[in-house]
Amino acid sequence: MARLVEKILCILFSLLFIASCSVSPVHSRKFKASEPCKRIVLYYHDILFNGTNVANATSATVANQTKLGDFKFGMLVVFDDPMTKDHHLLSPPVARAQGFYFYDMKATYNAWFAYTLLFNSTEHKGTLNIMGADVMDQETRDLSVVGGTGDFFMARGIATFQTDTFQGADYFRVQMDIKLYECY
Amino acid sequence: MARLVEKILCILFSLLFIASCSVSPVHSRKFKASEPCKRIVLYYHDILFNGTNVANATSATVANQTKLGDFKFGMLVVFDDPMTKDHHLLSPPVARAQGFYFYDMKATYNAWFAYTLLFNSTEHKGTLNIMGADVMDQETRDLSVVGGTGDFFMARGIATFQTDTFQGADYFRVQMDIKLYECY
Amino acid sequence: MARLVEKILCILFSLLFIASCSVSPVHSRKFKASEPCKRIVLYYHDILFNGTNVANATSATVANQTKLGDFKFGMLVVFDDPMTKDHHLLSPPVARAQGFYFYDMKATYNAWFAYTLLFNSTEHKGTLNIMGADVMDQETRDLSVVGGTGDFFMARGIATFQTDTFQGADYFRVQMDIKLYECY
Repeated sequence: MARLVEKILCILFSLLFIASCSVSPVHSRKFKASEPCKRIVLYYHDILFNGTNVANATSATVANQTKLGDFKFGMLVVFDDPMTKDHHLLSPPVARAQGFYFYDMKATYNAWFAYTLLFNSTEHKGTLNIMGADVMDQETRDLSVVGGTGDFFMARGIATFQTDTFQGADYFRVQMDIKLYECY
Repeated sequence: MARLVEKILCILFSLLFIASCSVSPVHSRKFKASEPCKRIVLYYHDILFNGTNVANATSATVANQTKLGDFKFGMLVVFDDPMTKDHHLLSPPVARAQGFYFYDMKATYNAWFAYTLLFNSTEHKGTLNIMGADVMDQETRDLSVVGGTGDFFMARGIATFQTDTFQGADYFRVQMDIKLYECY
Repeated sequence: MARLVEKILCILFSLLFIASCSVSPVHSRKFKASEPCKRIVLYYHDILFNGTNVANATSATVANQTKLGDFKFGMLVVFDDPMTKDHHLLSPPVARAQGFYFYDMKATYNAWFAYTLLFNSTEHKGTLNIMGADVMDQETRDLSVVGGTGDFFMARGIATFQTDTFQGADYFRVQMDIKLYECY
């Protein structure tokens, strides 16, 4: 009898030990880059104001480029751009991107973004706040989703940019692949 | 024999209790929007520099509005504004808000903010960093608290804006209801 | 007796199972400021463009200071600055800092930063996104690391600034002590 009890207690202790080891104090918490809890792929369309296209323009230069290099260093653009599910400019927008970017390298085109995605559709209501470097030389580049509200309450994640088309200063389009790893 | 078993069971229970307190899988973590771990309601006062009010002004335009629409699109303002507990401009400030906003819609007034709240009182020392869209058409709008330092070490949460008064370009006041969901 | 023991063990097992499944909302998670999971100390070098030093300059003024006070209120600078491991400007950079700062007080020098650290070395590949107030009057000041990508996937933490040298408008150097508390 006593032996049986000891045996069972021993098993119990082992289980307890396993439990207390395998259940995840926060350091060992692992998000997997390949397993977002939510993913949304959208296209960002930017039409720069040229002085005459008020009806179509979705962004405007608020600080001019400097003379540091030949790649528009310092040019700062404020935007309120439509986000669509496919890459057609005229598809119905499912969100808007409001924020700014500026160019920041003297030897090549390179930009820095901070903006909010505003969703107000039957599918999603709420916002995602995003910031980071848009290293245009790389085929894809990752920015940080640093917060969210509404349906995206307290979200965090990664927004991967990929240039879809770049038609000079007038119009460019970027695919934004938004992967959330904290969803509540 | 029975006593021994009881004793051991007692130890086991204690261990179990300790284990269940110290362990934490993160996936199952749920924040409730209605249950912040900390909440601070403050009023933000912005007095725009008009060229002569150096003594009173707390903000200044650093990039002028563009000609894209009639709602100051692109106007960028840097501020160092007092934050008070009630809506009196002259109440003793309990924090300062340092950062910038710009207008970003061509069809209505709409803004985007990024700033730091700096607390340096007996009650709180530290900072909160906040960014997001200020969709003025909505009665309340949520921005993200993306980080904190000092007493607010590693905090995250939501800052809900509500316009309290808007007296043209000269002075406006916003209630900021700051709810933190990650407190350490 | 044996039955009683079995019964109690059964209850224990159930409790253990419940405990390991249901445990610990995140409130009890504790980061310690003194125990970052990763720490990187780097030096930031900023050489402002003065109209002639294109070869050396790493930053440029994109919005001029306003007349609100005598401390460059509103002056906004975009930068692409080298980050080195020691405080020698000419040491090989281990990262770049791309972003902007502006001055924002009328009674003293004070700035606000938002930028990305881009690592592309054998040691680290990826980015860290940082924002916050640079209260120059304080010997050290804390900004927030609000997100990361690549090797710093989903990171958060604190970046502590300490001015290393300030040679007028031309050149300044800041030690940035980056402590991450969320590492994945």
